[in-house]
Amino acid sequence: MNLMKNKKAGYVVTGQWAKKAYQEAKMYGEAVELASSADETFSYIPDCSDLPITDDMDYVYICENNTIYGTKFKTLPDTKGKVLVSDVSSCFLSEPVDVSKYGIIYGGVQKNVGPAGMVIVIIREDLISDEVLPGTPTMLKYKTQADNDSLYNTPPCYNIYICGKVFKWLKNMGGLEEMKKRNEEKAKILYDFLDESKMFKGTVRKEDRSLMNVPFVTGDADLDAKFVKEAKAAGLENLKGHRSVGGMRASIYNAMPKEGVIALVDFMKKFEAENA
Amino acid sequence: MNLMKNKKAGYVVTGQWAKKAYQEAKMYGEAVELASSADETFSYIPDCSDLPITDDMDYVYICENNTIYGTKFKTLPDTKGKVLVSDVSSCFLSEPVDVSKYGIIYGGVQKNVGPAGMVIVIIREDLISDEVLPGTPTMLKYKTQADNDSLYNTPPCYNIYICGKVFKWLKNMGGLEEMKKRNEEKAKILYDFLDESKMFKGTVRKEDRSLMNVPFVTGDADLDAKFVKEAKAAGLENLKGHRSVGGMRASIYNAMPKEGVIALVDFMKKFEAENA
Repeated sequence: MNLMKNKKAGYVVTGQWAKKAYQEAKMYGEAVELASSADETFSYIPDCSDLPITDDMDYVYICENNTIYGTKFKTLPDTKGKVLVSDVSSCFLSEPVDVSKYGIIYGGVQKNVGPAGMVIVIIREDLISDEVLPGTPTMLKYKTQADNDSLYNTPPCYNIYICGKVFKWLKNMGGLEEMKKRNEEKAKILYDFLDESKMFKGTVRKEDRSLMNVPFVTGDADLDAKFVKEAKAAGLENLKGHRSVGGMRASIYNAMPKEGVIALVDFMKKFEAENA
Repeated sequence: MNLMKNKKAGYVVTGQWAKKAYQEAKMYGEAVELASSADETFSYIPDCSDLPITDDMDYVYICENNTIYGTKFKTLPDTKGKVLVSDVSSCFLSEPVDVSKYGIIYGGVQKNVGPAGMVIVIIREDLISDEVLPGTPTMLKYKTQADNDSLYNTPPCYNIYICGKVFKWLKNMGGLEEMKKRNEEKAKILYDFLDESKMFKGTVRKEDRSLMNVPFVTGDADLDAKFVKEAKAAGLENLKGHRSVGGMRASIYNAMPKEGVIALVDFMKKFEAENA
């Protein structure tokens, strides 16, 4: 609604949120599916080096980390000069980001930043404009928020306060460089085990694996269910995969310590030995 | 966007939020100002017993308690059978409400319910519909929220949790009947003093006085400023009135104990004696 001057935009569809964004955009103009990984249950990131972007497109949309499917854009698409709009809800603050490559970075804070109920937006100043689609609610105009220092409505004070605490925690720890190092270390423990296990298998193409969300399966739905149940009994919670992919998913956001990942892998080894 | 089937609605303009709602509605259809108290700086509630409501209006809007101006609808407008839409942000849970008289009751939770960042909506079931204006964002459709038990997006969990605590606190205390009694008692202490003081004067017509927000003035801007400054030094915070009305405003929401109001009146008496 804020960017559709030509009423045309390109969408890379890599999962459920990308699909929702793509379908929503159709209400406001011509939304073009530039690429999709729906053919293999969104288990990879499509090649985005030469997308069919046309000159009249207002922007190119991606969902940078796909929570349900466990994929992540390791290389940003070549947008051929068009504005890149990225939903970073499930990877924001997990590693450093070169904001100059984006037009808009946005995301819910509830994964790595703070309590659910707030959104963070980083927008290039020239994209903040009063020329929005007719009927755009005032509170949904980026210009309204920018002109009012994000205080057009009463802001979610508690959420902001906790986010501030998290920012300080991150800075004290060594910032996003250090966070990236820790996240890579954590994810490696789990992915290395998945690659050597005879029972468990990661579902995502190796080059597209997320640092945050790690889906895996045994290949046997009953065994998957047994694993989830026994893991829960052992104190390892929320390992059931999304219903659209089944199996298991370990979300190892910033707040998950290395010890948690080690405990999971130890449990998986034990389960594999017991159920081989 | 959800209710404008005929693209025409009536607005009673009693303050800044009502004005914003009225202006916003103009984007989507014909918004008619049914009555206004702008002529006397919104210091009263207009007579709403015979509003110029026409048969093609989709609804009638009011802002039931006007935070800045300290007015409250003591009697709901005669909507002539049209749907009543009421913003109750600053009076919700301050007293019992007969929900059957409304089509939609909505409000931010940040006054009497819980931490800022959430909205409560009570809507009549027959008003939940897919027939919304074209271009209505999916997340702004009441039907989306109703169909998904308010979980279409990740909900503001912490805010909901605290609201639940407040609901229990209210119930334990005796519910909204008891809350009303306490609020009337609190407000009476302050209004009685304003009515007898030679220095301080309430700005609102007596019959329209809010139980939640009590604006008052000395009639001398310098003396007002002195009062606000000295009150703050004495531990009485946030007494400066909104810049559009000047003077002072005491917000005595549910969370303010009677003792707080007594302390304010004691300080006002002392100030009046010292500055007479």
